[in-house]
Amino acid sequence: MRVLVTGAAGMVGRKLAARLAKDGALRGWRITALDLHDIVPAQAPDMAGAVVSIHTGDLAVPGAGERLLAGRPDVIFHLAGVVSGEAEANFDLGYRVNLDGTRALFDAIRLAGHNPRVVFTSSIAVFGAPFPEVIPDDFHATPLTSYGTQKLVGEALLADYTRRGFFDGIGIRLPTICVRPGKPNKAASSFFSGIIREPLAGMEAALPVPRSVVHTHASPRSAVNFLIHAAGIDGQAVGPRRNLTMPGVAVSVGEQIEALERIAGTKAVKLIREMPDETVWSIVKGWPTRFEARRARDLGFAAEQSFDEIIRAHIEDELDGKI
Amino acid sequence: MRVLVTGAAGMVGRKLAARLAKDGALRGWRITALDLHDIVPAQAPDMAGAVVSIHTGDLAVPGAGERLLAGRPDVIFHLAGVVSGEAEANFDLGYRVNLDGTRALFDAIRLAGHNPRVVFTSSIAVFGAPFPEVIPDDFHATPLTSYGTQKLVGEALLADYTRRGFFDGIGIRLPTICVRPGKPNKAASSFFSGIIREPLAGMEAALPVPRSVVHTHASPRSAVNFLIHAAGIDGQAVGPRRNLTMPGVAVSVGEQIEALERIAGTKAVKLIREMPDETVWSIVKGWPTRFEARRARDLGFAAEQSFDEIIRAHIEDELDGKI
Repeated sequence: MRVLVTGAAGMVGRKLAARLAKDGALRGWRITALDLHDIVPAQAPDMAGAVVSIHTGDLAVPGAGERLLAGRPDVIFHLAGVVSGEAEANFDLGYRVNLDGTRALFDAIRLAGHNPRVVFTSSIAVFGAPFPEVIPDDFHATPLTSYGTQKLVGEALLADYTRRGFFDGIGIRLPTICVRPGKPNKAASSFFSGIIREPLAGMEAALPVPRSVVHTHASPRSAVNFLIHAAGIDGQAVGPRRNLTMPGVAVSVGEQIEALERIAGTKAVKLIREMPDETVWSIVKGWPTRFEARRARDLGFAAEQSFDEIIRAHIEDELDGKI
Repeated sequence: MRVLVTGAAGMVGRKLAARLAKDGALRGWRITALDLHDIVPAQAPDMAGAVVSIHTGDLAVPGAGERLLAGRPDVIFHLAGVVSGEAEANFDLGYRVNLDGTRALFDAIRLAGHNPRVVFTSSIAVFGAPFPEVIPDDFHATPLTSYGTQKLVGEALLADYTRRGFFDGIGIRLPTICVRPGKPNKAASSFFSGIIREPLAGMEAALPVPRSVVHTHASPRSAVNFLIHAAGIDGQAVGPRRNLTMPGVAVSVGEQIEALERIAGTKAVKLIREMPDETVWSIVKGWPTRFEARRARDLGFAAEQSFDEIIRAHIEDELDGKI
């Protein structure tokens, strides 16, 4: 079994590579080769018995996809992409990486002709306000960002290339991944992780929106579980609608904070500073809140059941179980 | 007012050009220049007081869009495209014309920087079975053809380019246009027109599907009305969801035939030969039946009220009012 991961230097990509190395197998087959691609060199995980190759470059450059496909990977995880804020700030870069890069990879897979499983990370950013109370699986995708538009185009191509038999694709729409390890970033969603991660590390965190804001989260651990599960499910059972909204935990910011208090006490919660930010608030207002995600659940995708679980996953995976 | 029409040599494009020439104005402004583009030379309508220019070429070729935009058209009707059957039979051609050509035109408009109104003909082919009894405006687009996929990508780009202020776009999802003038073609939908057009001309027509098949139709005249109306509506009133399912007449094939009998008598109906065709039937089974089209109706888009009206429009527009 040969596995290719694009975007392997990103947060989810690194965790996926580590998980593949730890499992040593995928879909019940031993992994003999692991190709890790990104614009910068990904870190090779320790993996006995498998050839790990590090590839760098821009997928949209002619020939890049063909080179990655030369080894005929059996499963391709396509995670590469420019994030939401960057795609909005830099129009050309976003379309080049997220649309042209994805299409070039998909075309390289088509031309390779061996019909592998392709798992594509899409995003709930394909949805745009106004929303019903709970977003059903058959709700239309009307993105309000260039990032969401590019993900929607990727989804459409994935479904068509699958229908035509070029590959066997599964698109997974990730909710907000929380708690993200590392430092705060410039994403408008950064605070959802920040208000948990920073207090757990004894640091202050800013809360830029009202506590009533409801949003859907899944842990980085769940994101990796989604990817692994998507690699293994039966495409026939999925049918022609290949893009699936992933499950998650829908909670208000207030409920996030209550969970933090249950796990880390009042002292942690006191490190959260309410600092209203109109810019962040205006963006967050347009985001989806709750999802039905019935199809994904029926297909066996599972996330955490509570935000407490999400915090505990962070403590176990990032803080060696200690706070 | 300068107007550009792509796909101007096609059936709807020709009728749109003729209507623009007859009206001599659009959005209340006199048309002083009309640019007609297609892969083959479009026919220039008689138009006093306006410069009519015929352009030919492939929109996906670098520089083609820029040349068309040199005159800074105020309204652009983007009708150009490879039809459904052809896009399915020829993968590369369909993606090149319908996706690359559309994106190249949209990018040329973006780079021209004058923010014109763009009217894009999408299609109900963006929808794929299974369907609810009546398809609501917020039903998800999951096409089951490459043509539908390419139209969906065009819609997504149109919405994003509009949101970013590059142009002021309106996408209109046309139902099946019926009665198409001319000869039968290889489209699976050809019979919907054939069973009306041929008997009215005293010729036999084949009916390849059961009479119970329900489908939504609008006349070529309505298609042109949709385009003209889309050119004039207030983008602010439309909001960010720029792609609209057009209204039409939802009837069964049996009801189409009853309408023909009311208008042209039993003799005409006797020219319809039931010739079941499993290939056509298997395609038609996956097509949408009825649409709510509430948003379009609320925005003032209007189609015929009955299939009788659709037949009468054909008799008036194509047969000089005589049968």
